[in-house]
Amino acid sequence: MGPLRVAIGGLGTVGAAVADILISRKDLIAARCGRQIDVVAVSARDRSYDRGVDLSGVEWFDDAAEMAAYADANVILELIGGEDGIAKAVCENAIGAGRHVVTANKALLAMHGTPLAQAAERANVAVGYEAAVAGGIPIIKALREGFAGNGIFSVHGILNGTCNYILTTMRETGRDFDDVLSEAQELGYAEADPTFDVDGIDAAHKLALLAGVAFGTEVNFGAVHVEGIRHISADDILFAEELGYRIKLLGIANRTDPGVEQRVYPCMVPMDAPLAHVEGVFNAVVAEGDAVGTSVLQGAGAGAGPTASAVISDIVDIARGMVLPVFSVPASKLTRAQTVPIGSRAGPYYVRLTVLDRPGVIADVSAALREEEVSVEALLQRGRSEKGSVPVVLTLHETVEANMQRALARIAELDTVVEPPCMIRIENL
Amino acid sequence: MGPLRVAIGGLGTVGAAVADILISRKDLIAARCGRQIDVVAVSARDRSYDRGVDLSGVEWFDDAAEMAAYADANVILELIGGEDGIAKAVCENAIGAGRHVVTANKALLAMHGTPLAQAAERANVAVGYEAAVAGGIPIIKALREGFAGNGIFSVHGILNGTCNYILTTMRETGRDFDDVLSEAQELGYAEADPTFDVDGIDAAHKLALLAGVAFGTEVNFGAVHVEGIRHISADDILFAEELGYRIKLLGIANRTDPGVEQRVYPCMVPMDAPLAHVEGVFNAVVAEGDAVGTSVLQGAGAGAGPTASAVISDIVDIARGMVLPVFSVPASKLTRAQTVPIGSRAGPYYVRLTVLDRPGVIADVSAALREEEVSVEALLQRGRSEKGSVPVVLTLHETVEANMQRALARIAELDTVVEPPCMIRIENL
Repeated sequence: MGPLRVAIGGLGTVGAAVADILISRKDLIAARCGRQIDVVAVSARDRSYDRGVDLSGVEWFDDAAEMAAYADANVILELIGGEDGIAKAVCENAIGAGRHVVTANKALLAMHGTPLAQAAERANVAVGYEAAVAGGIPIIKALREGFAGNGIFSVHGILNGTCNYILTTMRETGRDFDDVLSEAQELGYAEADPTFDVDGIDAAHKLALLAGVAFGTEVNFGAVHVEGIRHISADDILFAEELGYRIKLLGIANRTDPGVEQRVYPCMVPMDAPLAHVEGVFNAVVAEGDAVGTSVLQGAGAGAGPTASAVISDIVDIARGMVLPVFSVPASKLTRAQTVPIGSRAGPYYVRLTVLDRPGVIADVSAALREEEVSVEALLQRGRSEKGSVPVVLTLHETVEANMQRALARIAELDTVVEPPCMIRIENL
Repeated sequence: MGPLRVAIGGLGTVGAAVADILISRKDLIAARCGRQIDVVAVSARDRSYDRGVDLSGVEWFDDAAEMAAYADANVILELIGGEDGIAKAVCENAIGAGRHVVTANKALLAMHGTPLAQAAERANVAVGYEAAVAGGIPIIKALREGFAGNGIFSVHGILNGTCNYILTTMRETGRDFDDVLSEAQELGYAEADPTFDVDGIDAAHKLALLAGVAFGTEVNFGAVHVEGIRHISADDILFAEELGYRIKLLGIANRTDPGVEQRVYPCMVPMDAPLAHVEGVFNAVVAEGDAVGTSVLQGAGAGAGPTASAVISDIVDIARGMVLPVFSVPASKLTRAQTVPIGSRAGPYYVRLTVLDRPGVIADVSAALREEEVSVEALLQRGRSEKGSVPVVLTLHETVEANMQRALARIAELDTVVEPPCMIRIENL
């Protein structure tokens, strides 16, 4: 077979790493693929910038969308980013011209995954997106190929390295969220505008893709219930430790009888759960299948090397002739799943209250919980009376979230409760 | 494309589970593959035995080797086992007749992997063996496809669920090896003849396959240094805990400048290493690549469901038209790696001695270590004087194994040392 011709749209750290590996490791990759892979075109904003890769003889395009349509390439890499605009044009032009697409763009696919998959399958081209979810971890390959004999009923995990780094550092140092976020920004582990990461949106993009490929359902980002980690305090992390839990921002997708649950929120996981030990910038994804049981895949969730590794695995698959349905079954057969609302969640809860340090408070709180049939498992009260208020921590037995929310609304209205209650779900994974 | 026709050689628990999934999940698998997968033939010893699967209309062969040669099938499953004999004949006949092979047989491939790969690639057929290593964990797929852009320099992990179950139970209960082994046999977690498992041979078979596919080297089971877990005592497990380690039987393959290291032995891993938390019958494999960094894949290492899941993923790949080089590069390009002998290992060590409870013993032991330039990191002495002898535990700073072995030989000859020294390597993974 002749060489596979690759055009790279976007020469940031990931694009440059992909070019570097494809060029410097040409022979090994050719041996693995049975054919050579050539970088034939690139597109980036600044042509003069030295990226440490020898791109002489490679065609340069100022406009990546134009490159996608006209470059003499079989595969177009979209490594530009953004849920619309140029990134979307690159993918659409590539597919329109009958070229395969490989992208690391979770936002784009979370918003437009189903129509892009339909277009790609009509054109009989691949859309590779291993790099879009959990960096170098081959979770899309595991779900779409490795577990193809399974009915998958859950896929969940730590999908955002920035949040996991912040939560790990908060636990290790006892510092507060804002403080650790600032440091993460200085260290380059968090963006100047951290919204996508700390508010859970990035994890939700990835979760929507995982749910689609795991369950064979249309990608439905709008159906993801999303909460971030800004409200987690150093106190919560300490109390979690005391109760035998660690706080992690998880993406959780479950296929249940009523439909599909898709949720991103910080939650407490038991210390002996595999996810409790995934720390710092690492990601991990748990898949539960009816034949394979529980599998955990763990690794670097971001960074130029791991992301480039995933991009290249998609290119290698294409070189080997693999063109699979984008979301595990043909796009025409993707089902539109019923969304299970967060109010239906059943599980235990942690609640931290800031209350006035006076008699009768616990009785009032207990009454509010009883009214909504929420039963208390444990109650912790610790000294530290600041300005006359003290933290009270409760864990609640398994209950339905709608009841929990009603109980919290009652509690928030109590005169003796001086701050909005902080509720964290407990996930006994 | 027409249906893919599958013949199943061996209807034990795995073969029956594969048949059950292929038949009961026919439509979902067809949607995922773009073509139907039909079970057309089976072979097993006892035709009358009810396996809970409806095999009416499926051709029956009394002889699996005959089935491999003559069944009207595209894919032959070898689920019989054994490193030679009928299993080997099934694979050879299938390849000879131009049929793809899928097998769960680690022993066969560890002994005959390279010639079988050569024959298969000449015939342009696949040999799938995802089920041969770490059960349902898609580690072969990860190494051969997911990490195809990487130079892999290490692959290591917990590859034998029986040993991991025994070590976990010893730690949790404080009981001795023989006692826990007997119980594991009663529970069906260990074979009546446990040799393959507890002496490390099964893990070594799997390691040889992992090394081949990770490094693109000829499979070389004979080059694996193998030690089992029979000599691990309840005391060792207690001391490990005290020192901040867990004892795990690991398979470790490293590609280094002098050549390839392939080793199976029980060792101490730090409590914060991912592998320390993989307990019971679970397996986990760590791969280290120069782009992706460190990835960990964890899951059920055995059992009918997980093994069937892996077998079906290989069948699905074949249905989708994937015929890859068996060990990641074409068999003709596999290199014959230099074997790095165990004597060259460099690392820290744990040694437990049983010594007479009298003055001067430590001085004698220290002198023996100094003679071989082995330096002591820590020394623990605990009461428990039984028959006048006491355990002494040492940890040694990083040293070369040859020196360590010479020091141990000196120590074993001391009059005050009353039992052969127990040495356990420390792996700071």
